Formats: sequence, C-alpha cells, structure tokens
Amino acid sequence: MQKSSVARAEQTLAAIQDAGDEGRRIFTQVYEQSALAAARAADERERSGIRLGPLDGRIVSVKDLYDIAGEVTTAGSAVRRTAAPATQDALIVQRLRQAGAVIIGKTNMTEFAFSGIGINPHYGTPGNARDATRIPGGSSSGAGVAVARGLSEISIGSDTGGSVRIPSALNGVTGLKPTQCRVPRDGAFPLSFSLDSVGPLARSVLDCAQADAVLSGQPLGELPARTVRGLRVGIPRGLLFTQTDTAVQAAFDQVVAELSRSGCRVDDMQLDDWCAAPFKLQEKGTLIAAEAAYIHAETLATNPGAIDPFVLARIQRGETIAASHYVSLQRARAELQQSLDARVADCDVLVLPTVAMVAPRIDSLASADAFNQANMLVLRNTSVFNFYDLPAMSLPIQVGAGQLPVGLMVVGHRGGDRDLLTVCAALQSGLQSLAL
Amino acid sequence: MQKSSVARAEQTLAAIQDAGDEGRRIFTQVYEQSALAAARAADERERSGIRLGPLDGRIVSVKDLYDIAGEVTTAGSAVRRTAAPATQDALIVQRLRQAGAVIIGKTNMTEFAFSGIGINPHYGTPGNARDATRIPGGSSSGAGVAVARGLSEISIGSDTGGSVRIPSALNGVTGLKPTQCRVPRDGAFPLSFSLDSVGPLARSVLDCAQADAVLSGQPLGELPARTVRGLRVGIPRGLLFTQTDTAVQAAFDQVVAELSRSGCRVDDMQLDDWCAAPFKLQEKGTLIAAEAAYIHAETLATNPGAIDPFVLARIQRGETIAASHYVSLQRARAELQQSLDARVADCDVLVLPTVAMVAPRIDSLASADAFNQANMLVLRNTSVFNFYDLPAMSLPIQVGAGQLPVGLMVVGHRGGDRDLLTVCAALQSGLQSLAL
Repeated sequence: MQKSSVARAEQTLAAIQDAGDEGRRIFTQVYEQSALAAARAADERERSGIRLGPLDGRIVSVKDLYDIAGEVTTAGSAVRRTAAPATQDALIVQRLRQAGAVIIGKTNMTEFAFSGIGINPHYGTPGNARDATRIPGGSSSGAGVAVARGLSEISIGSDTGGSVRIPSALNGVTGLKPTQCRVPRDGAFPLSFSLDSVGPLARSVLDCAQADAVLSGQPLGELPARTVRGLRVGIPRGLLFTQTDTAVQAAFDQVVAELSRSGCRVDDMQLDDWCAAPFKLQEKGTLIAAEAAYIHAETLATNPGAIDPFVLARIQRGETIAASHYVSLQRARAELQQSLDARVADCDVLVLPTVAMVAPRIDSLASADAFNQANMLVLRNTSVFNFYDLPAMSLPIQVGAGQLPVGLMVVGHRGGDRDLLTVCAALQSGLQSLAL
Repeated sequence: MQKSSVARAEQTLAAIQDAGDEGRRIFTQVYEQSALAAARAADERERSGIRLGPLDGRIVSVKDLYDIAGEVTTAGSAVRRTAAPATQDALIVQRLRQAGAVIIGKTNMTEFAFSGIGINPHYGTPGNARDATRIPGGSSSGAGVAVARGLSEISIGSDTGGSVRIPSALNGVTGLKPTQCRVPRDGAFPLSFSLDSVGPLARSVLDCAQADAVLSGQPLGELPARTVRGLRVGIPRGLLFTQTDTAVQAAFDQVVAELSRSGCRVDDMQLDDWCAAPFKLQEKGTLIAAEAAYIHAETLATNPGAIDPFVLARIQRGETIAASHYVSLQRARAELQQSLDARVADCDVLVLPTVAMVAPRIDSLASADAFNQANMLVLRNTSVFNFYDLPAMSLPIQVGAGQLPVGLMVVGHRGGDRDLLTVCAALQSGLQSLAL
C-alpha cells in the first residue's frame, strides 16, 4: 500500500459514486463520513508508529446481513426495509473496527442469502464485474463485484452453500469459506443455523488470511512459508465434474498439469458416495430450507408475496419438512462428516472447479426452470463442502484475455483453516496458472 | 464393605434368585458367571494391595439400553427380542469393567425409556420396592427397585425427562442426572439425542459420586468437604409445587425447615416463566417425540402394533411435528438455558420435590387417561431440568415407618456436577431429614 488510507478511501468513494446506478446495485449503503474518519485515524496511527494489525486502514465492505449500529440490516429483502435499525454492530464488525478497518459500506446480496445466482428484484442485481450483462453469483453478489471492481479491498460475505466462493469464482477474486464454527455469527441475519459461515473475499489469499484472522479473533501472525512441492492433492473425479463448461474444464486441467509439473502428488479420488449423499439425503427437503422456514415463519404467514418468488419457493419447501426428517439429516451428516474426514486424511487438499460453469447471462434466467437449473448447478460443488463443514477457498485461475473468470476450489480439513490458507498462499504465489 | 466382593456377589445373585418372578421383572438378564469372575479378580487384587478405584469389586447393574457384548439390548421392547446381539460393550460398560465393577445384570425399563411410570407389558413391571402393588417409576424401573431392594449396590440408569430421578424418588434411593454431555452415550440405545443423559442410582450420594467419576472418566478423588451452613438455597415456588400430595409437601417442608435451622440462606424464587416455558413451547410436540419418531421410523412403518400402546401414542405424536417447529424449540431452548443460568447464578442449588406424588398403585393406571395424567405429573418437575440441562439429584427424605418414599430434588449449575455432588453429600450427611 503506497497510498494513505484516506487517499484510498477517497478514491474508493469516488469510484462508487462514478459507478452511478451500478454502484447503488453493488452497495446498499455507503458510509462516507465514518469511513473517512476511520481512514484519518489509521493514517494518524501510522504517523505515530502505531498499528492495530494488518487490517489497519484497509478498505472493507460487509454484506448487508451484518448489523451496523443505527442502520437497517436489509438481508436483501424488501420485507426488511421497515425493520428497526440495529442497536449494535455485529461481532465481526466490532472486530473489524477494533482492528482499524475502514468500513466503506454494505454490499447487496440475494434476498435472505438463499440462492447462488445473485439476482435481486428489490435492490437491483449488480452486474458481473467482467461483463455486467452476466450474473454476479450469489448470495454475496455485491461483495464479489466490489472486490473485482476495486470498490473495496476486502469484502466480508457469508457462505451457507457457496455464497462466498461462487461470486469469488464468477468475478475472478479470492474467497474463503471457513470451518463453520470459526467465526462467530452474533449480529448476522441467519439463513441456516447449521450451515452459515462468515468469510472474506479479497484480491489475494494473503488478504483473506489477514481478514480471517481478525474475523476469527485468531493471532495475526504471517502464514508459515511453504512451497507446492510435495503437496498431496486429491481430485474428486466423478459427480462434481459432470455438466462442466469446456472453458471451466480447460482452466482446471491447466492447473492440474502445473501442479504435477511442480512436484505435487496429484491423485484422482473416488469420493462419489460422499459427494452424492448430501443431495440424495436432502431430496425430501434440506437443512437450510427447514431452518429458513422457521426463521421466516412470520413473513410466510403474513406477507409471502413480498419475497422474490424464486426465493419464496425455496423457503416454502421448508414448511413441508417433518421434524423426523430433519433429525435424520443431522444424524447422517454427523456420521458422514467423520467418515469423509477419515477418507481424506491422507491428502493435504482436494481441488475441483468452484463452479461448473462461467457466469450465465442474467436475461437467460428469467424463467423458473432456467433459474432453478442454473441455481442447482452453480451451488452443486460448493454446497457439498458446507454439508461436510470443510474449509474451502476459491482462487481465480488465469484465463485468456476476454474470457470469463473461472475459480479453483481448494478444500482443506475441518478446523484446518490456517493450513488451508497456507497451502493456498503457496499455490497463488507458486503457480503461473494461479498467479494474480 | 466388610464382606469380600465374591461374598457380596453371591449374596446378590442368591437374592435375585430368591425373588423369583419378581427378580425376573427387575432384571432382564443376570450374569452369574462373569460377575463371579469379576468379583474374584477384585478380591485377588485387594489381597495383592492393588485397587482400580472406588468401584473396584462393587456390585453394579446397568439398564437394558446399554450394550453388553454378545447380548441383545432390548431397550424394554418386544420389537428388539430378535435384534442382533451387541458386538461390543457400551463405552460406560467398558469404563465400569476397567474400574473393576462387577456387572451383575441388566435391569428392566419402560419400553424405549419413553415414560416415567415404569409399567412394561413385554417384560413385566417390577413392583415398587416398598409396596409391589405400586409403580416403580420409570423409565429406569428395574434400576431403582434393584438398589432399594439390595439387588445391586449401584445401578446405571438413563435420564431424558426424569428416568433416573423418578425411580430414585419413588423407591427411596439416591440418583444423579448429570449435565447432558458429561457422560458419553456410545452404545446406549437412544430415546432423544438432545436430552439423553447417563447417571447412577445408589444408596448414597457418595456411591453416586464414585460411579459418576467412572462413567464420566473424571478423576476419582474424594469430594471436597463442606457443611450446609451458608449454603444458598432457592425454592422455585409456583407451578412445580401445584398438584402436590400432602405427604410429599410435608416431607419437603420438613427439609426446608431443617435447612433454615442449619444456617442455610433459603429463599423462595419466582422462576415460573422458565418452569412453564418447556411445556408451553412443546404443546405442539416435544423434542423427544420428534427424535423418537426418527429413531423408531422403521418400527412405526412396519410393526407399530408390537409397541406398548401408551408408548406408541407418545412416539407417533412425533410424526406430526414440523421441522420448523423442531428448529424453533432448539433455538428457544438455547436462549432460555442461558437466561436461566444467569437467573440462578446467585444460589448454590434449587430444591423442590422430585415428584409431586408418591407412587400410585399399578392397577389405578390401566386407562389411557389415568396413565397419561399420572405420567405427565410424574415427569413434570424432573423434565424441566432436562430441558435446561441442569444437573440434578434426587435424595430420599426421611418419612415415617410405613410411609411411601419421597424424593428431594437438588438442582445445580450446568457443568457443575461435581459441585452439586459436594452439596448433596453435605446435605445427606448433615441433615437429619435426609439421613440414610
């Protein structure tokens, strides 16, 4: 960072302003005054030789499901326009402020965070950063676009089925879904108590690591140095590689070839029993839908028409789920988690495409069928690792000029978030195909 | 213990034999050979100066929902007569054996542990130890009667809504329901994943403490000495004192008077908001029923007629519960737990009658109405503290000759099981009305 925090904050605020209506679709709120004040304070600290940590003076946005004191938390929903303003900052916002972060604004999202596409009929749909006629990916749509367009250095998203990793992949940025319990959710509007996790999107793994340290309240030290040589990489060939765009497949193959050339031990793994299980078990209804039906019970009863019909349909499915089915899912999940943990114990990471496709055009998803089909596919690869609660990152793969972004998903071990970040930093600095 | 372990095991085996049919209603299985072998080993250790801990050579029975390798775990159900024998001991049985306990047999129980009465149409109903025409209390019916009749020194029960404390109270013995997570449940046939806890019934608090240390894998050291003077005791007057037998009320009042005379600070507390909440929240269906409906789904679908109709009706209610209701219960429970923890932080223990009534006659509960009404009342006071996950003991109160047993429930702080045992040991040794 050559420039002062104030200079970067001013530049960011101007760029948001210059983006006009699109800026208002990316950010639901912009905090000019408080951001500049925080930036000035960071610059003054720097002049007096004090630093609050690696996020001091960094330009950060948060998804509009985290409470900011005095502001309405919309969670992307029209229903919440009239909600009471939050009385205090979400815990992660407190931690960010204490670490000196400059909170520039709140980013737009899929209503209630309940789709991977990123279309929002209430607050507008931010266009994909590479091609605004295409979807941004969701649910942390504004977060992904803001980082890719340089409208915030770090965006804090949430990930229940892929909501950090999908917009990371589709906009060409880096994102982390941590192990679920790593970051506390106090003051975060919930989608699913079982699955919601809090993670950053940024330009690089190093920025994500620094944000993650603050979000999780862990020590801020540097990641340990490691090279890719000797890394044990598993590829879960099979179900999660079906229906994959040729551009995505080609980008992925290029990474795998370079991993092998770089001295990694790359092995195909047969994990389809585990990859298929979350879908098979949840055919009659998902954990997310059951929990969402509880969370939105009042709106479902009094004002369902105010909800995006595509989102409403997903929530309403939750009303039909029996408690015994829900209990069976929780039990099966706990058992399968342990068996997958044991199965992947011998490799350092799994790699696969984050999303099987590149961003489709927004206008191609107007029908319910097209929307639902795209939504299922966009969430497929990511959601498996929410079910298993493995930490996972999406790293942008180098693609040709004019090509749409493709993400590499790197999956670690439950609770091994720091190890995953270390491996991903090595990949991003060591591989040409993953260079920034 | 003056007598050798072998002598006590032989005496116990003979007493079970002498009890004839009633012995077979108390114990579903008796392990003569392995018990005598374990007793001989304990005696030999003692002669060579070795001791495995305070349970070494003690005569212990386990409820027939804990696996014993090579034996069928009936869980009190006819459905399970043809189940495959267990392939290994439940973890608590392993711990008991490693601690030198002499496992004398398995005790009878309410089918699937799903009622507080103790009537079992499949394996017979053990009569109350004081008056065999009366209910033993459940679901750990055989456990309570066995300890009261001297047919095992320590019985391991389970407690989901009161199943350790109710038979303790109605048969005049001491029982502990620990904090739910204190004792692992591997190899225990489940009733409710959320609420099942594993606890001992015995003659005294000290025996319960020693058993609890082995069950929980905690250090076996002596309880710290303390007196009752200065003890801060809360009495949750209100809902849990309604519909109370005069004999129960009189016995309780006698204890309270002695607590005050002994230098305790005894205060009435208004906790009815918390005491009423579990019932109000669960009017449309309980956590237990939802989880039981999952656990017994196959039997409900294929062979419901084989289940005790009173138990079947309770399980079937679980089939009607919506997942969103179940999720709402889990959320409300977690919040209420925290608020009650804060509310009772200033007192050491709560005290109240374990059960509002003395044991009714078995033949008075033949109709569904009479059964359900008695079952609700017998479980009322105990189940509240399963919902709040507070550890609780039932101590026998001194009553006149010929009177039926009455239990004093002493409730501690979540995770404060050892403190609760310490207080209860002080009460049992320090108060005339609680003397053994």
